[in-house]
Amino acid sequence: MQTDEAQIRQVVQTWMDATRAGDTKTVLGLMTEDVVFLVTGRRPMIGKAAFAAAAATPPGAPRPQFDGASDIREIRVIGDHAYLWSELTVTVRPPGGAAPIVRTGHTLTIFRKEGGRWLLARDANMLATVNPQ
Amino acid sequence: MQTDEAQIRQVVQTWMDATRAGDTKTVLGLMTEDVVFLVTGRRPMIGKAAFAAAAATPPGAPRPQFDGASDIREIRVIGDHAYLWSELTVTVRPPGGAAPIVRTGHTLTIFRKEGGRWLLARDANMLATVNPQ
Repeated sequence: MQTDEAQIRQVVQTWMDATRAGDTKTVLGLMTEDVVFLVTGRRPMIGKAAFAAAAATPPGAPRPQFDGASDIREIRVIGDHAYLWSELTVTVRPPGGAAPIVRTGHTLTIFRKEGGRWLLARDANMLATVNPQ
Repeated sequence: MQTDEAQIRQVVQTWMDATRAGDTKTVLGLMTEDVVFLVTGRRPMIGKAAFAAAAATPPGAPRPQFDGASDIREIRVIGDHAYLWSELTVTVRPPGGAAPIVRTGHTLTIFRKEGGRWLLARDANMLATVNPQ
């Protein structure tokens, strides 16, 4: 049996792997229904359905390639909740060979345990573009 | 006896009032020793001493005037921790009459109860400038 902290690290790893593979279904399975994504300079994205709509691309359409590296700075588990502070670098390669966009910065994420599984519930994303094109 | 949620709301109000008054000592009394401030595009500010150093101005030197309004969107208390999601607008008036700078956006904050008092422990600040000068 993995510790709660190890389970949360696994959720982060699965999230990154599935994002890299374009596997939105798996990513959606790692968040609560009432998930909230907070990003600088944008309105909050509230709810799993909003994430699904934002991630959708028409069948056959080219989609950007994502890659990322997460350096977990702190995990603290408090009962059925946990918070995670991470330093994150994300590289987005637009379809068609345009120059990649690299974003780096910190995240503060709240996880909630539901039905024995740790799910992402609130996410504060403070990434900024490193090399604006 | 106030509920935990009411106590946390009071900490936010006291923080805003003390910041407006330039009362750094009071603000420092509302955070944990190991506090972490995360802001987009900057390195993390770690520890109460780092906050004190950043807030210090030489005696008699003009200092900017801060004003702010906080719209609390969610507070959840989990034992001796809590998280708070807030929509925040901060106005900074530089000394010397330069045009004010308005920053708005969301925050996600972790509070920790120590010795019966709620203190700010981790803060994710996603404010962006509304009217760059």
